[in-house]
Amino acid sequence: MRHQETGKRQVGNSTRASGIIVPMFEHKILASQGRARAGVFHTPHGDLETPVFAPVGTQATVKTLTPAQLEELGASLVLANTYHLYLRPGDELVAELGGLHEFMQWPSPLLTDSGGFQVFSLAQTRKIDDDGVTFKSHIDGSSHLFTPEKSIQIQENLGADIIMAFDECSDPNDHTYSKTAMERTHRWAERSLAARKRDDQALFGIIQGGVNPDLRFASTQFIVSLPFSGIAIGGLSIGETKTEMHTTLDIVTPLLPENKPRYLMGVGTPEDLINSIARGIDIFDCVLPTRLARHNAAFSSEGRLNLMNAIFAQDKRPIDEACTCYTCRTFTRAYLRHLIVAKELLAGTLLSIHNIHALIQLVSDIRLSIMENTFESKIPSWLEQWQGNAERARTAKDTE
Amino acid sequence: MRHQETGKRQVGNSTRASGIIVPMFEHKILASQGRARAGVFHTPHGDLETPVFAPVGTQATVKTLTPAQLEELGASLVLANTYHLYLRPGDELVAELGGLHEFMQWPSPLLTDSGGFQVFSLAQTRKIDDDGVTFKSHIDGSSHLFTPEKSIQIQENLGADIIMAFDECSDPNDHTYSKTAMERTHRWAERSLAARKRDDQALFGIIQGGVNPDLRFASTQFIVSLPFSGIAIGGLSIGETKTEMHTTLDIVTPLLPENKPRYLMGVGTPEDLINSIARGIDIFDCVLPTRLARHNAAFSSEGRLNLMNAIFAQDKRPIDEACTCYTCRTFTRAYLRHLIVAKELLAGTLLSIHNIHALIQLVSDIRLSIMENTFESKIPSWLEQWQGNAERARTAKDTE
Repeated sequence: MRHQETGKRQVGNSTRASGIIVPMFEHKILASQGRARAGVFHTPHGDLETPVFAPVGTQATVKTLTPAQLEELGASLVLANTYHLYLRPGDELVAELGGLHEFMQWPSPLLTDSGGFQVFSLAQTRKIDDDGVTFKSHIDGSSHLFTPEKSIQIQENLGADIIMAFDECSDPNDHTYSKTAMERTHRWAERSLAARKRDDQALFGIIQGGVNPDLRFASTQFIVSLPFSGIAIGGLSIGETKTEMHTTLDIVTPLLPENKPRYLMGVGTPEDLINSIARGIDIFDCVLPTRLARHNAAFSSEGRLNLMNAIFAQDKRPIDEACTCYTCRTFTRAYLRHLIVAKELLAGTLLSIHNIHALIQLVSDIRLSIMENTFESKIPSWLEQWQGNAERARTAKDTE
Repeated sequence: MRHQETGKRQVGNSTRASGIIVPMFEHKILASQGRARAGVFHTPHGDLETPVFAPVGTQATVKTLTPAQLEELGASLVLANTYHLYLRPGDELVAELGGLHEFMQWPSPLLTDSGGFQVFSLAQTRKIDDDGVTFKSHIDGSSHLFTPEKSIQIQENLGADIIMAFDECSDPNDHTYSKTAMERTHRWAERSLAARKRDDQALFGIIQGGVNPDLRFASTQFIVSLPFSGIAIGGLSIGETKTEMHTTLDIVTPLLPENKPRYLMGVGTPEDLINSIARGIDIFDCVLPTRLARHNAAFSSEGRLNLMNAIFAQDKRPIDEACTCYTCRTFTRAYLRHLIVAKELLAGTLLSIHNIHALIQLVSDIRLSIMENTFESKIPSWLEQWQGNAERARTAKDTE
């Protein structure tokens, strides 16, 4: 069905409720089919068409790509990591240099995470209490303290369009720890809201609770009760099964308000994107396309290809005959294999272009199908097309 | 003075003299000032405006750059290395895949060297006799034989627009060895001419003789007597002084015919380009811009900058205020330094764009000044502008 337009576009205006800054960000739903939605989210750096896949620019650069290449392949939203940029080059320096958009010359919307996930996965040692997390830098071992207030301060210095409340990500199968982490995440959500000083950033709250239905239910109810501009679902794609992820989404998304964007953090694979959009998700990010590129791998409708393989030495075809990216319009598999074997860095650039484009194009095709009311009928063929590309990206100790 | 246009454009037509294929390639001189010339060299892949600087694409890729980026920064001629491409992926495979232009998707003119310089500088062990050079691959130690006939065969398989006669590069200060190597280079020049089967490639002869005036004189006289489409000067920028290089050029270029392009191999620095164009050189190639980029260094009118330096941490200026390349139009020194410190590969891409653009722009500016008859008056200010960028690139054991 198509929704009526409601509300007027407001970006950066804000009201105050109980002393808390509540910016007015509008997510306009243009069409929906089942739980899947096609919409537009207005940000200070332009309109985001949702659903949207965001490539990851951990250190203020999507690895090996220029902003010009990212724009050409169709990227609209880019994610950068608060933990990394706080440590290097420092959020205060980024602020002095005009903020993250100016620093990395990305003219379109940016999203920063809270730093929580990296603190738990990357930092050398960490001590968690209700105040926050004390940790040692993975770069030089120096000691630091992240609190909800500190995370918001860093994210305000960076100046992304979408920022995240500070949260604690637990082992999804440990019910006791998941409950403790969820309750702390809730207290930190309120402190994150109270800590903000800027009114031109959309602050999203994060639902935790692992793969425990009771905790996910409780966490969703709590987070949606707070005046966030969007809702993120954390703690998934970190080791649970596909069924557990789907079940969790089936619990969470029906409880979410229609008018706020839903962000599934750290997802995904082509299959995860299809299945999660069908369950009502609007925003995704994942290091998978660039990480695969560094390992010489490419998404394709033949399944994941490792282009170092000798079978490609004389292969005149592009990675994927149906793909319209610069790499596939221009180069053969034989040339890409040569670059990989000769250890030429251009291979990583060309594979990154292809892999990111593949996910952005898939999400764009899905968006169009929602607008045309054909998404649900196309799901089986898309899942078949992308089978063999299912392996996930997140591992505990990767620095991206 | 401006020259009258003489002769008609001919590319790929050929005559036979004593059974040797002699393709008709035209280098049209449009203007000259002193010994400096501005011209156009017609090739099967388009007209080359000379003087021209060619970035080096050793392994069928100018390191870290896409062909689209190379075109945007103004590259017209690209050099690729016969030695490297013979070893990997193999010239026969490149031929099967449609030739080097098709393989690397470079639509404009290409030049391949003879493989001689790399055999002498890179291969693990080598045995030279009049037949050719037996050497072991620097990649896997396998044994190979390069002869003039083999070098031409490889270069015909690769299919560049400009190809080189097989030559022997000597220690420039060793008169005895330089004489032996020069005489062998002359015999190999005749064999290279006799070996060719294609008539759509411009074959250049190479003048050797080190820094010995008598040998350079003799070598020039010999090479210009043969029906080459262009004349290359080898054995320079490999350890001799700047004065020795200038003296050598002052001996050689006055003996060269006006109507053939002159190519100074492996040069140069900005200063070398200015001084060599003034001495009548038309074509240059050098790994310097991409190699500097990999070492975090950039050409600038302030002298060579190492952008890892902490003094750039908060520097909002581009590398060079006067530069019009994508990197300088877009990014601050502070951002480039961040990429370098964070070990992000994008740094190499952005510095390569800047460094190659700087040399291409300099040569383009010089060409315009020759057309406008202002080159000689501008030499002092150009030399001053580019002082501090004089260090050369070629070292014996680098694999590029």
